[in-house]
Amino acid sequence: MEYDKILPDIIKATDSKILLVVLDGVGGLPNIETGKTELETAHIPFLDEMAEGSSCGLTIPVLSGITPGSGPGHIALFGYDPIETQIGRGVLECLGIGVPLGRDDIAIRGNFATISPDRIVLDRRAGRIATEENQKIVSLLSEKIKEIAGVNVSIYTVKEHRCAIVLKGKGLHPSVSENDPQKEGQPLKPIKALDSQSEKTAEVLRKLESQVMEALKDVDTKAKGLLFRGISKLPDIKGFSEKYKLHSACIATYPMYKGVAKVVGMDIIEGCDTIESEIGALQEIYNRYDFFFLHIKKTDSYGEDGNFDAKVKILEEADTYLRNIKKMKFGAIAITGDHSTPSLMRSHSWHPLPLLINSPYAIPDDVKRFTERECAKGILGRIHSKEIMYLLLAYALKLDKFGA
Amino acid sequence: MEYDKILPDIIKATDSKILLVVLDGVGGLPNIETGKTELETAHIPFLDEMAEGSSCGLTIPVLSGITPGSGPGHIALFGYDPIETQIGRGVLECLGIGVPLGRDDIAIRGNFATISPDRIVLDRRAGRIATEENQKIVSLLSEKIKEIAGVNVSIYTVKEHRCAIVLKGKGLHPSVSENDPQKEGQPLKPIKALDSQSEKTAEVLRKLESQVMEALKDVDTKAKGLLFRGISKLPDIKGFSEKYKLHSACIATYPMYKGVAKVVGMDIIEGCDTIESEIGALQEIYNRYDFFFLHIKKTDSYGEDGNFDAKVKILEEADTYLRNIKKMKFGAIAITGDHSTPSLMRSHSWHPLPLLINSPYAIPDDVKRFTERECAKGILGRIHSKEIMYLLLAYALKLDKFGA
Repeated sequence: MEYDKILPDIIKATDSKILLVVLDGVGGLPNIETGKTELETAHIPFLDEMAEGSSCGLTIPVLSGITPGSGPGHIALFGYDPIETQIGRGVLECLGIGVPLGRDDIAIRGNFATISPDRIVLDRRAGRIATEENQKIVSLLSEKIKEIAGVNVSIYTVKEHRCAIVLKGKGLHPSVSENDPQKEGQPLKPIKALDSQSEKTAEVLRKLESQVMEALKDVDTKAKGLLFRGISKLPDIKGFSEKYKLHSACIATYPMYKGVAKVVGMDIIEGCDTIESEIGALQEIYNRYDFFFLHIKKTDSYGEDGNFDAKVKILEEADTYLRNIKKMKFGAIAITGDHSTPSLMRSHSWHPLPLLINSPYAIPDDVKRFTERECAKGILGRIHSKEIMYLLLAYALKLDKFGA
Repeated sequence: MEYDKILPDIIKATDSKILLVVLDGVGGLPNIETGKTELETAHIPFLDEMAEGSSCGLTIPVLSGITPGSGPGHIALFGYDPIETQIGRGVLECLGIGVPLGRDDIAIRGNFATISPDRIVLDRRAGRIATEENQKIVSLLSEKIKEIAGVNVSIYTVKEHRCAIVLKGKGLHPSVSENDPQKEGQPLKPIKALDSQSEKTAEVLRKLESQVMEALKDVDTKAKGLLFRGISKLPDIKGFSEKYKLHSACIATYPMYKGVAKVVGMDIIEGCDTIESEIGALQEIYNRYDFFFLHIKKTDSYGEDGNFDAKVKILEEADTYLRNIKKMKFGAIAITGDHSTPSLMRSHSWHPLPLLINSPYAIPDDVKRFTERECAKGILGRIHSKEIMYLLLAYALKLDKFGA
């Protein structure tokens, strides 16, 4: 990012505190009957009051028209370019189930598959075995396979036919071709290193592939082998303390968001399972950090379910609890989402979504409600999500002047 | 910049004239008592009338959240990328005091410092000696040190402990490490060439360092040596005549802005010290140029002083004199600033600031006032300052079609 060239010269640590509230999937589309979006329908007096006293705008998660997954959506909110800094699918799978990853570990998505003894892939999902069966197989494999060529191998159940694999050891690099032929009736593809640094990873995975087949040969299950996908490592990026001189904390209920926050070096506050407990945690840790990422998940889940009314309700619930942040003092607050999840679409979408920035140095504009159409009139205009962190740093007076 | 790839093919010289009015630090923040910004408070009928008849918008000086110094602020307004094209601090110091610089000269900021005979830096500012003492020392040194290794050395007083040094000669490059240890009680750092081209500059500076110490050894002053900082050269860029085919003039009252204008090849119109005299100069030279950069300084100075009322007054004064530009014919006029300087902050800031573009080919929008919040509603939206020059060229019909 262009910021990288100048940030080290202008960033400074100060006492001011920054709060980033992410209402996951907050943006929506009009209800076909009422013509109003979820936010326009909801009674959200606190968010509206905040919008009225803040600078508002719309934020584009990645690029116009691009619908982000949770990874890119959050990486952008954390001030990294979501296209330059991609988190591999193996890493995301591990983060999603809360598996800790070290900088040098290799993370892989695994599919249990039905594979014939002569290596033909008969069913890429092993008949979508039940999660319980997956757990039994994983515990059997974990018993038999602990180390290959000096590399520690761990296998974790995700669900149904899906698992995650972590390789821990020296000299591992992730540029390795996958064995998944993508089509059934085809043989397993050979696992090859795509650069010389990745030879060892390829060797370990080839051995793992055959040891798994050997171990499952006589077991009563459709899972007869493993397809390796999304072979990856944590991205090599500067974390929040080095990049922004921030001591940062993540308050979230789901492993995925804690995981992405961990990738950028945030401390993870554990034990939150409701919005109420998240706000409680924020109050509790307020004195110990200078950056807080507060993630509210359910707005997204109900959007994905296509449940317009439930999404409205959860927005109202969030609004009630969020009012408590008024009791705490922040140099700058942003309230936004990582992407839109319109109930109408039952999925993430590319639509720009509301953003407000509250600070003593923010010009309040004409926006009176925290909605898509109102925020479109705001003084911040339309920005990209990756810019938000730099605005927060500016509004919290943590950036020196660039150039004399 | 992306424009560089196509500009040479589409730029053309024409008779139309362009005026760029820069109200330094024009943007502001709401007064805590009234809720109105400086521009919203000021009676500026001419600027408002211009806004009403123009296309308006907000301009981001560098990047969202980045507060520019005068160098990057103006380089962007002149159509160069302010991150790619950085002006070194030594060059800015020279420009700020009006020292002429050639393309191949090395410019350096100097600090007179108290340095022990065994090279320990005791006081990096030599007790902030008075400017008069600085002048005496500079004249003594200038007497004794005129040339080193065939390179012409000139030293200029800036103020207090600060001076500027210019090296003129062949084969000089600025990639040289600084001798400033940054901390007191530490020895001078060795001056080293950071690339092979810069060996000669390093040699000259090492000799200059010891000759200055020798010359000041027995003088009754705390200044016992020189710290060299911001060793730099003019940026290697195309000037206005080559880049834009424009014959351009700068009307400004302060050396810094004349200096930056000179970097991009403008002719400097000397002898202006008030807004009135600047407008007079514009009328006088109107026939001789096709691009005019008119810089009004005091809006920034009063912002930096935190003097809200004085900033309002100077905006009103500028408004009165600027009305005279209506008598002259321009193909395109832009009125904007290089950055905001809110009185509330007593400093430059990152906030986007008002911009209007007036031309027979500009669509007047709903904006009725030349203010931050009104211009936010304008048809130009939010653009980056580095785009303004290309818009001016377009509105003045100096750009051909790109592609067939």
